[in-house]
Parts: sequence; C-alpha cells; structure tokens
Amino acid sequence: MIGHAFMGKAHSQAWRTAARMFELPVEPVMAVLCGQDIGRATAAAVQLGWAEAADDWRSVIARDDIDLVDICTPGDSHAEIAIAALEACKHVICEKPLANSTLEAEAMANAAAQAHATGARAMVGFTYRRVPAVALARQLIANGRVGDVRHVRAQYLQDWIADPEAPMNWRLEKDRAGSGALGDIGAHIVDLTQYLLDDQIAQVTADLRTFVKDRPIAGTGDALIPDRRGLVTVDDAAAFIATFAGGALGVFEATRFATGRKNAIRIEINGSCGSLAFDFEDMNVLHFYDATEPAATAGFRRILATEPEHPYVEAWWPAGHGLGYEHGFTHQIVDFVNAVAAGTDPTPTFVDGLHVQHVLDTIERSAEARSWQPVAP
Amino acid sequence: MIGHAFMGKAHSQAWRTAARMFELPVEPVMAVLCGQDIGRATAAAVQLGWAEAADDWRSVIARDDIDLVDICTPGDSHAEIAIAALEACKHVICEKPLANSTLEAEAMANAAAQAHATGARAMVGFTYRRVPAVALARQLIANGRVGDVRHVRAQYLQDWIADPEAPMNWRLEKDRAGSGALGDIGAHIVDLTQYLLDDQIAQVTADLRTFVKDRPIAGTGDALIPDRRGLVTVDDAAAFIATFAGGALGVFEATRFATGRKNAIRIEINGSCGSLAFDFEDMNVLHFYDATEPAATAGFRRILATEPEHPYVEAWWPAGHGLGYEHGFTHQIVDFVNAVAAGTDPTPTFVDGLHVQHVLDTIERSAEARSWQPVAP
Amino acid sequence: MIGHAFMGKAHSQAWRTAARMFELPVEPVMAVLCGQDIGRATAAAVQLGWAEAADDWRSVIARDDIDLVDICTPGDSHAEIAIAALEACKHVICEKPLANSTLEAEAMANAAAQAHATGARAMVGFTYRRVPAVALARQLIANGRVGDVRHVRAQYLQDWIADPEAPMNWRLEKDRAGSGALGDIGAHIVDLTQYLLDDQIAQVTADLRTFVKDRPIAGTGDALIPDRRGLVTVDDAAAFIATFAGGALGVFEATRFATGRKNAIRIEINGSCGSLAFDFEDMNVLHFYDATEPAATAGFRRILATEPEHPYVEAWWPAGHGLGYEHGFTHQIVDFVNAVAAGTDPTPTFVDGLHVQHVLDTIERSAEARSWQPVAP
Amino acid sequence: MIGHAFMGKAHSQAWRTAARMFELPVEPVMAVLCGQDIGRATAAAVQLGWAEAADDWRSVIARDDIDLVDICTPGDSHAEIAIAALEACKHVICEKPLANSTLEAEAMANAAAQAHATGARAMVGFTYRRVPAVALARQLIANGRVGDVRHVRAQYLQDWIADPEAPMNWRLEKDRAGSGALGDIGAHIVDLTQYLLDDQIAQVTADLRTFVKDRPIAGTGDALIPDRRGLVTVDDAAAFIATFAGGALGVFEATRFATGRKNAIRIEINGSCGSLAFDFEDMNVLHFYDATEPAATAGFRRILATEPEHPYVEAWWPAGHGLGYEHGFTHQIVDFVNAVAAGTDPTPTFVDGLHVQHVLDTIERSAEARSWQPVAP
Repeated sequence: MIGHAFMGKAHSQAWRTAARMFELPVEPVMAVLCGQDIGRATAAAVQLGWAEAADDWRSVIARDDIDLVDICTPGDSHAEIAIAALEACKHVICEKPLANSTLEAEAMANAAAQAHATGARAMVGFTYRRVPAVALARQLIANGRVGDVRHVRAQYLQDWIADPEAPMNWRLEKDRAGSGALGDIGAHIVDLTQYLLDDQIAQVTADLRTFVKDRPIAGTGDALIPDRRGLVTVDDAAAFIATFAGGALGVFEATRFATGRKNAIRIEINGSCGSLAFDFEDMNVLHFYDATEPAATAGFRRILATEPEHPYVEAWWPAGHGLGYEHGFTHQIVDFVNAVAAGTDPTPTFVDGLHVQHVLDTIERSAEARSWQPVAP
Repeated sequence: MIGHAFMGKAHSQAWRTAARMFELPVEPVMAVLCGQDIGRATAAAVQLGWAEAADDWRSVIARDDIDLVDICTPGDSHAEIAIAALEACKHVICEKPLANSTLEAEAMANAAAQAHATGARAMVGFTYRRVPAVALARQLIANGRVGDVRHVRAQYLQDWIADPEAPMNWRLEKDRAGSGALGDIGAHIVDLTQYLLDDQIAQVTADLRTFVKDRPIAGTGDALIPDRRGLVTVDDAAAFIATFAGGALGVFEATRFATGRKNAIRIEINGSCGSLAFDFEDMNVLHFYDATEPAATAGFRRILATEPEHPYVEAWWPAGHGLGYEHGFTHQIVDFVNAVAAGTDPTPTFVDGLHVQHVLDTIERSAEARSWQPVAP
Repeated sequence: MIGHAFMGKAHSQAWRTAARMFELPVEPVMAVLCGQDIGRATAAAVQLGWAEAADDWRSVIARDDIDLVDICTPGDSHAEIAIAALEACKHVICEKPLANSTLEAEAMANAAAQAHATGARAMVGFTYRRVPAVALARQLIANGRVGDVRHVRAQYLQDWIADPEAPMNWRLEKDRAGSGALGDIGAHIVDLTQYLLDDQIAQVTADLRTFVKDRPIAGTGDALIPDRRGLVTVDDAAAFIATFAGGALGVFEATRFATGRKNAIRIEINGSCGSLAFDFEDMNVLHFYDATEPAATAGFRRILATEPEHPYVEAWWPAGHGLGYEHGFTHQIVDFVNAVAAGTDPTPTFVDGLHVQHVLDTIERSAEARSWQPVAP
Repeated sequence: MIGHAFMGKAHSQAWRTAARMFELPVEPVMAVLCGQDIGRATAAAVQLGWAEAADDWRSVIARDDIDLVDICTPGDSHAEIAIAALEACKHVICEKPLANSTLEAEAMANAAAQAHATGARAMVGFTYRRVPAVALARQLIANGRVGDVRHVRAQYLQDWIADPEAPMNWRLEKDRAGSGALGDIGAHIVDLTQYLLDDQIAQVTADLRTFVKDRPIAGTGDALIPDRRGLVTVDDAAAFIATFAGGALGVFEATRFATGRKNAIRIEINGSCGSLAFDFEDMNVLHFYDATEPAATAGFRRILATEPEHPYVEAWWPAGHGLGYEHGFTHQIVDFVNAVAAGTDPTPTFVDGLHVQHVLDTIERSAEARSWQPVAP
C-alpha cells in the first residue's frame, strides 16, 4: 500500500478485516507500507499493521512477492504509480479521483487495458458504491421497482471550510488537488448516480464557486503564521444540471460550505413507479416509495438495510446492528479479491474512472463557457 | 355553547367551519355563548362569532330554539349542565374528561340513556380520534393489517410546568381539575388506544408523581405575588402498565414534565403481522410496517395521511396539504351532526367516557395500593 | 371574490376565520362570489359562505359597497380583472402567478402604482411566506443567525402527473396556464427564497422538461374518451441554477414527477455561521443549525414553530398544536387588512410578483438558449 | 477467548482492531480460542484470527502466557469460567448477563473482589455504554445540561420471534438462557439508564409475557421437524415501571415482538432544564433539547456524534463518517486495556453486573407478586 494518511488508515482496516468477516478464496497479506519518509512510514506500518515499511515505491513494485498495489496517495501521483504497477503486472486498487487530469487518466486506462492480458486487474476506489443501502438501491432500480427514472437529485454536502478563517490545506491548491469540491466529493455523486442508473451523463450546465479566496496559513501545530495568507485556487462548491443519456434529469451539488452537514451524500431518484432516497449521514437506511401500492397505504418506507437479504450484510451482524463508514472499504477488498480469483473484472474499472473524469472536465468547461456542454472525451 | 376559553375557541372554529367544508344534512346555527360573566361572554361571543351571549346557562337550555348544548367548561360543572340539557331533550357534546368523579360520570351516562328515547344524543369530546392519521390507524387494525395486537406503547408528553417556578393554575388543583396529567392528557391515550384496538383495558399497575409540590402564585398580569406559594394537589405525571381484555400489553405515560415535548401524543402498536406508529407533533403522518413484505424491502412507511382515500381528507385540500389541530374538532361536529340526522349514535358515547373514567380511577387506586388492580365499575 | 375552485375555497376559509382568531381593525364581510356560471356560483356561495353570487364580475366591481376584490381565477384573466378593480379604486388580492405573461404583469404593476394614490392596495398571493416556520426562518436570517448566505437549495416536488396515463387538465395547456411546473410551483420557490434572503436572483441557467408529451382526455366523470389524446404544451419539470445579487448560489427544482412527494416545498439555506432547513410536508417544523455552538453539542434543531413567540402563532393554539395548509391564507388576510388599516403597503406587492415573472421568463429563455442569462425586465 | 458464536465474532473484531485504531499501552495478542468442539473451534480460530484453538478452557486458563480471559459463552457457564480465571489471577471480560442466577453472580463478584488484590481486573460487557452518542449523553447529564432528571423512558425492541411459527432456539429455554427478553435485552436498558443517570433503580412494578407458548422445532438446516413443538419457558416481553433512588420515574419495555423494530434501543431522559433522546437504529445520533434556549429557537438538536470532540471518535474518521455496531466492542477493549495498564478499575464491574441481576430478579418477583417490590440483594 502506498500512502498512509486518511485513506491509508481506512484501506488498512479493510485489508485486516476482509478475510476475517467474509470467506475469501485467498488470504491477503499486508506486506509493505510505503511512504515518502521512512521514519513516518515505519511508525505508520506498526500502527496500521503492515509487516514492513519502505520509502521507495518503485523497488516495492519490483518485488516478486507483491501481487497487488493499493494506491492511497494524493491524485497527482496516481498515474505514475498505477502505470508502473500495471506494467509490472500487479493488480492495482487506486483511490479516486483516478488522476488530476484527463490525460493522465487516459494513460492509466490504457495501461490497465494492456495489463489485462497479463491477468492484472485494476479498480478505482469509489467506495460508497458498496454501502449496503446504496447497493440495494441499485438492485431495486435494476429490478424495475422505480420504473423509468425521470429525476436524479444528488448532493454531497460538507462544511469543513465554511469558516472563512479555516486555514489553508493542500486540498485547496489546484496543483496538488486538481480541483476542489468538484473532484474531491462531486466525483462521488457523479459516479454513484451513474452506477445506480447504469447510465451516463451526456450533457451539463454548471457553476463553480470559490466563496473564500484566501485563507490564513498554519505553521507548526495549530498556530497560524501571522500576516500571511494563501490563495485558494480550487472551487469551494460546484452545482450542475445534467442530462443522462437515458433521459433522466439530474440536479447536483457538491460543497464544503454546507454549514452543519458533515458528510451528507444525499441521493433521490424519482421514477415512473417508485422513488428512492438515501443520505450517508443515516447510512444504514434506504427510503423506498412504491407507487404501485394503494394510495391509502403508500408511503416512503424506511428500509433498515441491515437484513441478511441485503448486499454484504449477511457476513456481519444480526438485523438492526448497523455498519459504519469503513465497511464499504472492506466490501471493496472482498469484491476485488473475489473478482481476481474468479477471473472477472472488478468494477468500477479505470475506464469508469476515466468517464467520471470526462464529466468533471465538462463541468469545468461549462462553468467557464457559461453554457451547456456535451460530455466528450 | 357553554364556556369560552381554549376549548370554546376550538369548538367555535369547528362549528363555523363544518358546514362550509363538508356537506351537512343540516346547517348548524351558532346561537348563544354562555359564560359566567356577561361582559366577558359578550366580548367572546363577538370575537368567536356567536349571535348572542348569556350568563345563565339554565335559561338558555330552556329555550325552544336551542337544539344542542356544547359544554366547554372545566370538569367540575360537566355533570350538572349535561344532565340538565339531556333532561331538556337537547343533544349534548361534552368536553373530556366526562366528569371529575365516577359518580358524576355514571349519572351522566344514565341521563344520556334516558334521553336517548327522546331522540337526544350525547357525545364526549375525545377529539384526537378524528385526526385522519389516527382514524386511518383504526381502519388498518380493523382490517387486520397488523394482525393480533401484542404491544401498545402510548405517551402523552407535554412540558408546560417542567420549570419548578411556573406559577399555579386551576389545572393543578384537585378540587377544580379532578386530577392532573392523568385526567387531562392520560385520559386521551386511554381512550385512543381502546378506540384503536376496539378493546378495553382490564387491569393496571401504576405510579403517580408530583415532582413539584408547591408553586408561586400569579397576581394580576404575569407578576407573581411575593412570598406566597400554592399547593399542587394533583399529579404531574402518571405511568401505568395495562392488560387489555384481548391480551395486548400496554405501557402508558402521561406527563407535563417532558422537557421539549410540547404535545407529543405518541402511540405505537405492534401486532403479529404489522406495526403502526403515530406522533401528534407530526400529526399528518402515520407510520406503518407491513411484515408480510419481503425482508429486503420491508420498512416503516411514512404515510402522509393527506390523500382523498384517507378519513375526512377529501373535504379539504389536495394531497400533501396538511391539516392542523382544530380540524379534529370540525370532524367531531361533522360526525355528530351526521349521526343525529341519520338517527345513529355518535361515538364516543357517555358510556365510553364513563369507562375511561373507570380506568383512570383504577390507576389512582393502583398507585395508592402499590399493586395491580382490575378495572371495575 | 372571483373564482370558486381550489383557491376560492381556501380564500373563503381565510376570510371567514381571520377576524375570529385575530383581532382585526375592521370586520371583513363576505359579500359576493363571482363565477362564470350563475348556477354554480350560487351553489358555491352557499357552500363557501358568501352572501350573494354573481356571474358578471364587472358589475360587482362597480358596486360602491365592495371595497376589495379577491382574484382566484386562472392566470389568463388576472390582468383584466385586477386592472379593472384597481381603476375602480378597490383593494386587490390576486392569486399567483401575477399573470401569464410579463407584459400583462407589467400592466398590473403599473395599475397598482397608479391606484396607490387613491388609497387602493394590491397584493399577490404567495401564501407560503406566511407559514410560521417560514416567517421564522426569515427573522433568523434577518437577525444574522445564519451569517452570509452561500447556498440556497430549493425544491418544490409533487407527483400528481407522474403516471403517464393521468388525464389531460387545463394546467397542462400553455394557453390557459401560461407554463407548467415552472409557473405553478417553481414560482413559489423563487418568491420564497428571494423573500427569505431579502435578495433577488440575478442570473440563471436552466432546463425544462416535458416527460410525457401526450395524455388521455377525460370525458364526463372519470371516464376517458377512447382513442383521443391531448398534447401537453407546458413543462413537467424545471431545474435551474441561480446566482443571487448578493452572491449566494441557488439550486432549484420544480416538478410534478417526483413520485411519492405530494407537496414537498423544501428549502435549505447554508450561511457562514448557520443553516436552515424546511419541508412543507412537515410544515410546523423549522430546522436550524447554529455554528456558533461548541462542536460537541451543535446539531440541527427541530424547532416546532408552534410557540407564542413564533410569527402568527399566538392567535391560535397552545404550543405543540400544529397549524395546517389553509392557515397561511388566514395570515395573508390578516396582514392585508392590518396594512390597509394602517396605511402601509402589504407585501408581496405587484412589483414583487412582476419580478418573479421576470425570473420565470429568464428561466424559459435560458432553457431555450442553452446558456446562462441575466434576469432582465 | 471462550466461545466463538455471535459474541465471539464481535469480540474478535474488537481485539484485532483496538491497537490499530487507538494507541494502546500494550499490544494485545490473540492467543487461543476455546470451544466445545475442537474441530469447530479450530475452524473458528482460523476464520476469526486466533493463533491457536482449544477445547479445554481449564488448561488454557492454567497457561502462564495467558493474561486475560474473554468469556463469550451462554450465561449458564459464566460463573464457573470466570471464577476459575480470577482464581488463576487472570483479567476477565465477561459477556452480559453476568450469570443466570443471582447466586452465581454474587460468587463472581466475590471472586473479582478477592482477585483484585492480585492485580486481576474484571469487567462485564455492557457494550452499548461505549457507543459515542451514549457516552456523550452521560457527559451531558453529568455536566448538568439536563438538570434534575424526572423521566426515564427506555425500550429495547426487537422482532425476531414475532412470527408465532419462528422455530425454537436455546434463548427460549429457561435452563440455558436464564430468562428471555428480560435478561437478554432488558438487562441492557437497566444498565444503560443506571449508567446514564449515575443512579440505581430502587423499586419496580412489572409484567412479563409469553405471547407464544410453544414453537416448532428445527431439525437439520432450516427444515422443521413435523409434529413436534417445543415449550417456550422464558418471557417474550417485559414491561416495568421503576423508581430510581434519586427520584426519577422510569418506564421500561423489552420485547422480541415489536414487529419492524430490529434493534431499537431507545432512551429518552427528561430533566428540569433539558432532555436527551437516543435510538440505536440511528446510533450515531443523539438528540438534545436545551431548555435554557429562548423559546423561539429551542428545539431538539440532532447531534451527529461523529466529531473529534465526542467520546472515542477522534481515533476513527472525520466528522460525518459514522461508526457501526462493533465499534462499541473495540472501545470496550481499549478502555479495559488502558485501565489495566493504569491500575484503575474498568467499569462496569462485576458488582455493577450483580446489581443489574438484582434488578432483573426483582422484576420477576414483582411480576409474580402483582405488586411493587423493592430492589434488594
């Protein structure tokens, strides 16, 4: 695994847990943790449970005893690492966004396509697909329980920089992060809605906003450096209207300025004979409206997605004993390991990740052109 | 109508509205408003829309042009007025509780039975029965949608005297009010659950509490009279466990000390194949769980009881346009007028009100005896 | 009052109730109900409680004993009636939308301006402003409790024609209705958000959709006429992104295809130090997040807007006894009568209604041009 | 660890995770898993991640390299194992209920007291205390944020045997399970409310119910054995009213017949200046009402207990990324290991567990005597 910050911690917990709660065809071994600084990487390896630490990912990728590379670094290094790993015929799990530019993402998708013949598999980490309530929503749509989808309403709401005096952070710099709310969290709702509908966004009109243009700079600890402010070079919020290829109308919003909303991924889908609603702040619940019910007893059902009948749940606890955020990562490992063992292709693929990148690019292009734009490679 | 405080205001709005929103067989005329003080009664008659005012209810009852007496006074005068009205062959609507003592309530039920032959009809005002979501709940139970009822969970939660320095009030004096939370609001959940199940409470074990024993006394305006405190002689809260004749287990709580709950009448019913949940603080909603649904899509449905298919709703607004507190009173008038015109018996009858009184008495007896007691006349 | 369908019924209930629940400086008299057919108008006058019926609104407007004209007809007759009434120096309350075209709306605003000198006042009926929870939201924003507003998220969701076989209706014909979801319900969220923020929408990008292009035609009763279908010439749904003059980013959606949502007017506002959320399907509640609270105890508060401290509530019932849909209409009458008596200008004025019309026009223009458009007269 | 069913799986996940997400003073080693059958124990050890398996717990307890014994067996073997382990000077974590009889529980508490001098520590596994929202509730009460507690309302609602044809199970046999809903889930709400209030239940009146007296018997797989039914010898549901020593009035209900409720641990607390509400079906949320707020802005706050300021949360994920059921077990291990390392006493102690047992006994005694009973050793 490369990288040991937030995502590294979540992935480690997933690797540690997958084979204990699920029956896997092979037993994953947590071999090497790579970081930029060997001291910090070593400490992290101990804390997170990896056998070794390293600071040169190239030499780790070159090792014969390494079968899989899990990339948890910021987006600007994804392409280089993933392409090298695929060329070395390793399986790759890469955190989203696939890359900071479409060019890089295309190169990665090409590398994945070429490595496929060698048996190497590549997956991008849109982990929210694997929340049981979300996977259940996809099943219900696929089974026709909502009918023809007319409306998609998706929001990803956070508030961690709503305070104008919250300090600078690498995620607010275009060079490091690629984009702001759009790429960081907007990418998730683009992927999730396309996944749920099994459809693709075809056209968009959009607006991007940076509400706070400059921010204080943190020195050591929590102290701020006086009189110095850094420039915010990414968007704080993105709003876009989208047309899906199949005809649905989508309204999207991703922001880090939704005061009081902490990680509210909210998706509503209205179809010709049913509707669904989900909010990650209540992640074990899916609301489902069945319009084929008589009017007197129709209503949104609060389905507690903790039954053995629900995706992934049987491996865990009895009904009513909810799961948490990191369980999606465990499910991701389980699905990946099972797919590799079965010789099938784990999803979302790098091509899926590339398509999301195209959508994000089109949103930026539309916001600049002040007009509708077709999603195009 | 006798009395023009809170209940008088609600009943007036109902009389004014019933024939305008519903098609009634006869047109009610708001003839005379009686009060203790002719000055205040006259002002109230103007404000509330009555043609005349009076301060002697006996002479009003004696009038030939009066067909119906609506009693909105405190409980200690119900028996005298109702019996006189029934003896004069008038229809009677009497606010709950039927009376402050079982003896009085029995006399009233007897008077109603005797007057029945003259065509006079009597009803007690448990108005919450006529909230559409509640009436729908009864239909669903009657239609077997929850199966055999095992659990009844009912709370009536208010907080208007949770503050120990809230001043004295006639409702806190046993002489005037008969009892405290038990009779004032506990009576509602006893009636509602018996109505919903079409069953009766057979045995109870109970506790009554007076958390705050004395309180300041208000003088004129909002000012308190210094150094004087009044004794609270009624219960602040009542809790009881009940066995229904049909076997269901009931757990009840009525309190004026549920800080933050304003008028939370909460009822949950669990049966062998379904459940219902209602909270008056969200009065247009009934939650319904249908256990015959497959586990993957079962869940409590939030039924917005605003469809034309729901009881009383068709006369009002389109779906999604909710009703409010006073609509229950309008429905009460509508049902009463329709029953009288049709020659049927409006419910709840005085006998129903008397039975509630028996239950309340038994609760008091149980709380004192510290043991289970059968409900008995 | 002119017109006696849905809005006529709601307005009648308001006129009947206003002086009974509130203390008004003058007592409104429900004099004449006008309709196109004298027979149906007479029946409606009896049912809704008007003293007389008429079928010629011009002669009614000419009467000296008429002080106020309340216009509840479809939008295509608003201009003619309102202008005539204002020229006759009558006060005018006109249902929204102000008119079906901006040209008409301008003429109405001009007529109102000219009549103002004669003492006549004009108001447009955006009644949802007067739901207590909404009025409270405006107070909190005005008092700085949410700080600088960054995000406005507004939806008006209905589902009454989600079924493709729901029959034709005058609201689906452009000639009669002017527009579809946009003008009928989108107008409300444009008005409400501008009212809440005390700001105006300056630019929009939009999409309009007609999901179902033709529909069966109803004959007498509920029966459909076989083999005939009518053309839907208005939008089923509207989505738009808006920039407010003050800098807030708005995301809007109005639709009649949100299966399971009956009258969900949902508004969320995120500011620099607080947030608000409202849903008309739970109309007595306002959710408020105060970001100045310590993180450990911060959370969206479910304010039950039924306290005497809340706008309009003191005239009604004790805390926790909720109001319903038609109460907003009563508050509208109360505010109008008080303003006229006090010589102040009731709001929203015809100029406010005209501005909403401009926004709606710009949305249509933007949807056609496929690009952002400034709101312009 | 002894036992490898449901609780064994949850405890294993906790042992595996504790040192990875928290900084612990010592690193736990998952040494030996004991079961009755060596074959199944070996398979479980592999699946759950233990180094060895064994079928003789006595010999494992005798080993010098074992410092701690984690007891996850049914209640009828707790006393024997725990006492032996304590006599061998091992630390002990014992699942609830402490024992199936008060006599056994007393012996265990005595053994714990004697072993204390040797440094051995004992804890009983009321894991719900360590849900962050619950621990936060205790902090708020301790800090006086709700004032004097008047009302406690606690329910533990499940529905896994609501279907009368659900088959027999060892939990329905008194010999094995000790009691039914009362001991299995009622014990949790007794412990939780006493913990939250830092107070003890002093008197109770109660009812116990067995709604379904006999059930089919499952053979191999899911097939039922025809014509044979087993006797249910425990309670299906328990209801009790309790007086706390400090004066609060408690109303409790524990049932396996609450159709549609899967694991609803619901606790509401009303105090003189605030209230709290919690439901485990939405386990990351605590509702808090602060009555010191002005009425216009007071309301139950939905606190998402996922902030670093909340108990246990900082070790996990950013705000808004919820935890799940098993996290409480991890926190239990963390607290136990930290207490042992610090030389303090981990809670709840065996004495706490014994007190819960006394309360449960008194409830059974009260249900039989049909009267209030004091809780007494």
